[in-house]
Amino acid sequence: MKPPGDESPVCRFPLTEHPHISMAHGGGGRLMHQLVHDMFAPLFENPDSESHHDGALLNITGAQLAFTTDSYVVDPLFFPGGDIGTLAVYGTVNDLAMCGAKPLYLCASFILEEGFPTESLWRIALSMRQAAFRSGVRIVTGDTKVVDHGRGHGVFITTAGVGAVNHNLRIGPGSIRAGDVVILSGDVGRHGIAVMAQREGLSFETTIESDCAPLSAAVMQLIEAGIEIHCLRDLTRGGMATALVEIAESSDLHIGIDESKVPVCEDVRGACELLGLDPMYVANEGRFVVIIPVSDADRTAAILGTCFPGLGSTIVGEVTDREAGVVTMRSIIGIERMVDMHSGEQLPRIC
Amino acid sequence: MKPPGDESPVCRFPLTEHPHISMAHGGGGRLMHQLVHDMFAPLFENPDSESHHDGALLNITGAQLAFTTDSYVVDPLFFPGGDIGTLAVYGTVNDLAMCGAKPLYLCASFILEEGFPTESLWRIALSMRQAAFRSGVRIVTGDTKVVDHGRGHGVFITTAGVGAVNHNLRIGPGSIRAGDVVILSGDVGRHGIAVMAQREGLSFETTIESDCAPLSAAVMQLIEAGIEIHCLRDLTRGGMATALVEIAESSDLHIGIDESKVPVCEDVRGACELLGLDPMYVANEGRFVVIIPVSDADRTAAILGTCFPGLGSTIVGEVTDREAGVVTMRSIIGIERMVDMHSGEQLPRIC
Repeated sequence: MKPPGDESPVCRFPLTEHPHISMAHGGGGRLMHQLVHDMFAPLFENPDSESHHDGALLNITGAQLAFTTDSYVVDPLFFPGGDIGTLAVYGTVNDLAMCGAKPLYLCASFILEEGFPTESLWRIALSMRQAAFRSGVRIVTGDTKVVDHGRGHGVFITTAGVGAVNHNLRIGPGSIRAGDVVILSGDVGRHGIAVMAQREGLSFETTIESDCAPLSAAVMQLIEAGIEIHCLRDLTRGGMATALVEIAESSDLHIGIDESKVPVCEDVRGACELLGLDPMYVANEGRFVVIIPVSDADRTAAILGTCFPGLGSTIVGEVTDREAGVVTMRSIIGIERMVDMHSGEQLPRIC
Repeated sequence: MKPPGDESPVCRFPLTEHPHISMAHGGGGRLMHQLVHDMFAPLFENPDSESHHDGALLNITGAQLAFTTDSYVVDPLFFPGGDIGTLAVYGTVNDLAMCGAKPLYLCASFILEEGFPTESLWRIALSMRQAAFRSGVRIVTGDTKVVDHGRGHGVFITTAGVGAVNHNLRIGPGSIRAGDVVILSGDVGRHGIAVMAQREGLSFETTIESDCAPLSAAVMQLIEAGIEIHCLRDLTRGGMATALVEIAESSDLHIGIDESKVPVCEDVRGACELLGLDPMYVANEGRFVVIIPVSDADRTAAILGTCFPGLGSTIVGEVTDREAGVVTMRSIIGIERMVDMHSGEQLPRIC
């Protein structure tokens, strides 16, 4: 970061064109990327901490650490398979895991709306305890604020996490190479559909549960097995499609996906067809892709298959140098199409 | 933390008596302490990280670190002397300083309300950059969420911070001893009055500016000078009175304050008299107390006087074993009264 001094940094974000924040600025698509990259990044980013997608790597008196944060504003607070507390722990644990770090400590900050039921808060706190235990992390400090009724929405939770980096891999889009393969840890689309169904009062034949889960143990197993991990990315806001577009754009390589290989469970597929959604863009909270040399593919798929039994971990695509910054998907009937980031709001809006 | 397993932790917080969150649960007084200690602490606290008032000390592969978080919900967002961005940086920097840590890295998470002016966001981001530079910290990672109009309030910011601990002092209420002296870094009450005046449209003869400022450089100077710091505490929500009551209660000692020694500037005193407020309970964002052996008193006061010229750093009281867990204040006319934590809402409500 340059010293601010007397200089007046120029705002690259087009304030006149976008004078007000819209829902799309939080949706995980192009507009959110613009806000982050044109408004915040030039002011805050610092070149000597290796920049990660959703976290930073720090070096403090010899210890190599990862540091990340996320706010959780999911509506409804409780949904099949989890609640805002589960997400607030697993989400940050997973961001650390995606930096290749072993998650160790979390802090949690609550913004409570006046009138919020204390019994619901207790349930959420219990979920956080359970999720922290399952992830092997400790929630060591926190904060509580209360805002006037109507100025919040039940409860918002922000967690930040610190993890330890115990390897020499350089994990990030910059490390992927033509010839690498993309392995997906399980089926996609459950979390977004579970939250939307709960919020909109939709019911399907069976209840679709969120996939929210900690990914750190699986990542640690890959690292311990000596897999040459080039890139890791969890498939949250914007789903698998957005995650892959981000990676392709950052790496200036092409990623080709075989749609027939991407597992989508029948219930999610049915719900998506009914609602006109593409499961590739639906948010997940317990799925990730790992990009590795083809020589490590079988071992990686085997480890993920053991960590996530029955979820269909599999090779879904490959990296090529055919075209810079582009993701394509070959459909089940063999037609190849370009995959883009959605421009604004996530559909369904689940956070 | 004990494994959650099948056990059902008992909620010590009286859910029936307090079925809903009230503003008082965020006010810094008794009710907030009850929420934190009876609901969150039994679920999250972990005995092997030394617990601090507003942060945790961690040991990661040999590095001794401090870790802290705070959410900022101040209304109005802009006030004389600062804005929510200034607070979000200095507040977390100061929490690290109060752990005796050198603040290094911050993360920042924004919860934006749909419709919020992007120009205001830019101003806030610029303030954060400036405050980070002045504090010598780097903002290295972050998150952005947008909530529906009416479900937030402009912008809420949560920051978390990591700092390095490079000394062997045990800083905390457990280290204070009868005979220690209490030194206050400057005059009290400016921040709370500045924010309230701005919000309520009150005007006084002169504009009262918030005292918000980074405290880390002063704390580092005390440590480098070899001052035997027993306890540090910034005087935020609940003001100086609440901070001292917390310390007295945690240490089972008595703290006696001489009211005539506590600097309050004329404008703040006038505003407090007009509004029926006690400046001892009004929030500050750039003031702290340090408790030290009497032998270090003169050097400490001299260092603080250099760091905060003209603010009136001075000895305001002493620690005795006269009565356990009690704070008393001798008034200007010589009458001694007991000082208690306020029970609920802070007055004025400034965060």
